[in-house]
Amino acid sequence: MSLAIISPSRDISPWLEIFKKEAPDISLEIYPEIRHPNEVTVAMVWQHPKGTLAQFKNLRLICSMGAGVDHILGDENIDKSIAICRIVDPKLTFSMTNYVVMGVLNYHRQIQRFLADKENQKWDMNQPELPVKIGVLGVGELGGDVLDKLDYMGFEVLGYGNRPKKNFKFPYFYGDQLGEFLKQINVLVCLLPLTPQTDGVLNADLFRKCNKGTYLINVARGQHLIEEDLIPAIDEGILSGALLDVFRKEPLPEGHEFWRHPKITFTPHIASVTNPKAAAPQIIENYRRLKENRPLVNQIDRERGY
Amino acid sequence: MSLAIISPSRDISPWLEIFKKEAPDISLEIYPEIRHPNEVTVAMVWQHPKGTLAQFKNLRLICSMGAGVDHILGDENIDKSIAICRIVDPKLTFSMTNYVVMGVLNYHRQIQRFLADKENQKWDMNQPELPVKIGVLGVGELGGDVLDKLDYMGFEVLGYGNRPKKNFKFPYFYGDQLGEFLKQINVLVCLLPLTPQTDGVLNADLFRKCNKGTYLINVARGQHLIEEDLIPAIDEGILSGALLDVFRKEPLPEGHEFWRHPKITFTPHIASVTNPKAAAPQIIENYRRLKENRPLVNQIDRERGY
Repeated sequence: MSLAIISPSRDISPWLEIFKKEAPDISLEIYPEIRHPNEVTVAMVWQHPKGTLAQFKNLRLICSMGAGVDHILGDENIDKSIAICRIVDPKLTFSMTNYVVMGVLNYHRQIQRFLADKENQKWDMNQPELPVKIGVLGVGELGGDVLDKLDYMGFEVLGYGNRPKKNFKFPYFYGDQLGEFLKQINVLVCLLPLTPQTDGVLNADLFRKCNKGTYLINVARGQHLIEEDLIPAIDEGILSGALLDVFRKEPLPEGHEFWRHPKITFTPHIASVTNPKAAAPQIIENYRRLKENRPLVNQIDRERGY
Repeated sequence: MSLAIISPSRDISPWLEIFKKEAPDISLEIYPEIRHPNEVTVAMVWQHPKGTLAQFKNLRLICSMGAGVDHILGDENIDKSIAICRIVDPKLTFSMTNYVVMGVLNYHRQIQRFLADKENQKWDMNQPELPVKIGVLGVGELGGDVLDKLDYMGFEVLGYGNRPKKNFKFPYFYGDQLGEFLKQINVLVCLLPLTPQTDGVLNADLFRKCNKGTYLINVARGQHLIEEDLIPAIDEGILSGALLDVFRKEPLPEGHEFWRHPKITFTPHIASVTNPKAAAPQIIENYRRLKENRPLVNQIDRERGY
């Protein structure tokens, strides 16, 4: 029994350090140098090259190295009987929420206008606050926390998900109530999981249902946004601007229109960064649970996709 | 009995509209056109020219048109027997808190670095969060709310005031514990009332007691800060920068060094703007209470100065 690490795009040395210290008994294989593929029962992956998991004939568990599992579910070569687990880390939630709150506040208080006013030596006290009513797409661990924190600060918030919910703490819309939900808000936050149903959900059709001047914050996945639809929606005034942390291709390619658009603010996928100190112990725990035939922690539902 | 309005620097038309609708019985005098000074028993003021209140021989109550009363207490011509009231408005607290939280988050998540990175077409994911531990000078209505909201978001917070406090919800320092308080934190928020004791409190001596790289947020009064001490403290690296909303002279004079300093971010006194819809009814209420000899609302203590 061994654990394979497949994460070609990330520096895994902090992870290895924790394994060495906390679980020296676990035998590790590090992609691409796999010595004994048949011994591998657990794989810990982040954006693995598709198909690389097929070599492990005895694989029983795949652990995502982050909160999302779309990179695993998107690989059709993976046998459906293999369990998949994700990381749930309060620090991930803390970072994601404070990033979104920052985005909402910067829009509400127009920080970029005031930075420009300073640059232009202009003192203009007029209209210091834009009214905001915030809608969050996706009300799981992350979206739920954003709603809770913004509500506590005194903002009006609404949630949207794909299934009905009983006793939800905030006004809630689901399924075909998307248009109705969008009509209530002027700041739209995307925190959906990436599934075949949510791929490309932020598109021209959705933007057309928004109130004029709606501000978009996408912190989920680049694939949620049809990037070609965003600039026309802003230039036509349907959206007033956007804050993006994720892109279809990262790093954002040179020459991409987003670099130069004045109403698109972005950060390089740093809204919430997995902390190996919180994440590695969860993977070690699931490795031991699998070995001892105990129920896994934070296992995802393949049907739902998260 | 009449009410005089003295607010030469502000547009008072929204206030007049509310008086007309809610209290058509109150006889108004609007500075500088005072017809019957001896009739005036209540004055509603914002930054009145010093001495202008002396003409009202029968004045019994002065209402500040905002949360602060330093502009009233700073006028030595006012008889000490005259009651002074201020505005307490949940909306003022909401705005102040969300401005401060924005300032903390923008520092923590380094929004200005990322805005510059975009400008320079640079994709740099390194060190996406600076550690922050926030100390608030002044733990009244406003400071207390800032502590509460930042704590709820998961940040470490501490308060500092001038008197001992029992059962305060957060770590609390007072009096000569200022140095000890400053050693615990790296973001310093000033929300003190302006009194002779707090005038100039943000000075070179205090900065020297701060941890290297402390970030300053002043949203109270311009007079709290010795402006000449700020830039040296930043240039020597004692402070990493500042977010200011208030200044000794407003609008900030042309040629003032703050306009051009890259590590000083500022806004034109808009952190929290009095809303006449919330404030005017409080002044009407106190006018009626005075008339009926009932206790006033939000009367300030002259000795404490707030």
